[in-house]
Amino acid sequence: MKTNYESNFHSDLSTTLANKNSGAKLSLDVCITPFSYPIYHRDDAIVVVIDVLRATSAICTAFHNGAEKIIPVATIEEAAEYKSKGYLVGAERNGIALEGFDFGNSPFSYTTEKVNGKTIVISTTNGTQAIAAASHAYKVVIGAFTNISALCNWLKLQNRNILILCSGWKNRINLEDTICAGAISKILLEGNNNFKSGDGALSAVFLYQSAQKNPFKYLRNSSHTERLSAMGLKNDIKYCFTLDKTDVIPVLDGKYLVKQF
Amino acid sequence: MKTNYESNFHSDLSTTLANKNSGAKLSLDVCITPFSYPIYHRDDAIVVVIDVLRATSAICTAFHNGAEKIIPVATIEEAAEYKSKGYLVGAERNGIALEGFDFGNSPFSYTTEKVNGKTIVISTTNGTQAIAAASHAYKVVIGAFTNISALCNWLKLQNRNILILCSGWKNRINLEDTICAGAISKILLEGNNNFKSGDGALSAVFLYQSAQKNPFKYLRNSSHTERLSAMGLKNDIKYCFTLDKTDVIPVLDGKYLVKQF
Repeated sequence: MKTNYESNFHSDLSTTLANKNSGAKLSLDVCITPFSYPIYHRDDAIVVVIDVLRATSAICTAFHNGAEKIIPVATIEEAAEYKSKGYLVGAERNGIALEGFDFGNSPFSYTTEKVNGKTIVISTTNGTQAIAAASHAYKVVIGAFTNISALCNWLKLQNRNILILCSGWKNRINLEDTICAGAISKILLEGNNNFKSGDGALSAVFLYQSAQKNPFKYLRNSSHTERLSAMGLKNDIKYCFTLDKTDVIPVLDGKYLVKQF
Repeated sequence: MKTNYESNFHSDLSTTLANKNSGAKLSLDVCITPFSYPIYHRDDAIVVVIDVLRATSAICTAFHNGAEKIIPVATIEEAAEYKSKGYLVGAERNGIALEGFDFGNSPFSYTTEKVNGKTIVISTTNGTQAIAAASHAYKVVIGAFTNISALCNWLKLQNRNILILCSGWKNRINLEDTICAGAISKILLEGNNNFKSGDGALSAVFLYQSAQKNPFKYLRNSSHTERLSAMGLKNDIKYCFTLDKTDVIPVLDGKYLVKQF
């Protein structure tokens, strides 16, 4: 390991440290857990919340299938209160749909028949916690692989600082959200010299680039993929990693998520 | 991007989700900032603190050059108090050695002439904060590229849960510490089925593996490399990425770091 590693490193060092980001104006970074959000918060940044498996993927699906508004809530108590008022409510903890509610967080459960024209409520283990953490940001939008192209096209037009907030797993890093954050960062950075990327965004891009070559090296041992796979939810995983199932961009407006377009 | 990515992903999915870690007993994970340490803390884990640029590299150098004890302190006030008592004190903030102290955190300043046989005090922007965050752990040891083989050989013999704590930059992720954490994790995982790695360790290993192929893609735009490079400290960077300059394993014993061997 020593020879290759060191010789590669040292031979190129003097020529490659140039700051390719010089002159950049906008910041692009990735925060890998809601717990760290206060460290990364900027008053003027658009925050993109990601919970690939499965909350933000399910939210995109629900809007695609006609949901009018979604109320994301952090606690089960809030979810139960909305349920008692007659709302359709999704509630999930640790990958399991909670009894007495209408949905878990499988995208497949948010069908047109159930959600079209409705206002629904969602509380999940990680995703809705991340939305709550960023709720005072300049703007909060919902990202997933399933809406990635529409989302990135929209973000490019905003001319704003961007912070991608991964939901993680109980405030620990998870691979799937970080890889999705890397995919979004890469698209935004390509051909756009307006962004100065922090180490969070750089790390995420590098992880995504490696994952592109062989996603299974990455995900086969990842904690949440194991968890869902053990629950027989491989179809959910496949769906959540599918690109561009929809053009919707959910955006937080007060307590509601609504469709940006 | 869509075709390759999705087809690779889906064709292998069913066969690769097997949990290769099944039956594992010990946990190995990476926490990327001191801020997140409370999330990852386990009463029974050995914590390896890393601050590649440059605190933990400098600490290894100081012991290699004969320092007897090192007192890591989090605040400049504590550093100044020790200075007033006659100790040799290193104090750095934002990459700059503070005036009125004996060292910054360049490894080159901890020479045999200065440190041999002495007890010295160090306070740095990130590294000593990370040591402070983990100070109640079962055991705290100091890691760097410069002592990586000796460290990993020792860790393998402990039969303990291991948490690698990156110092990061002001509680944000940084690339160089995460890459070093990945290098350590990879060595520990190779040929050892006793470890169950969390997503933090998996992410770090993948970053390290990519960095091995071309470290410059990773580090040329990393925030702290830029910062040090702009200060003319490229030789420090080269030194801190050199493998196995020493066999010392600094370990925290009360308020002192001492040599394990």
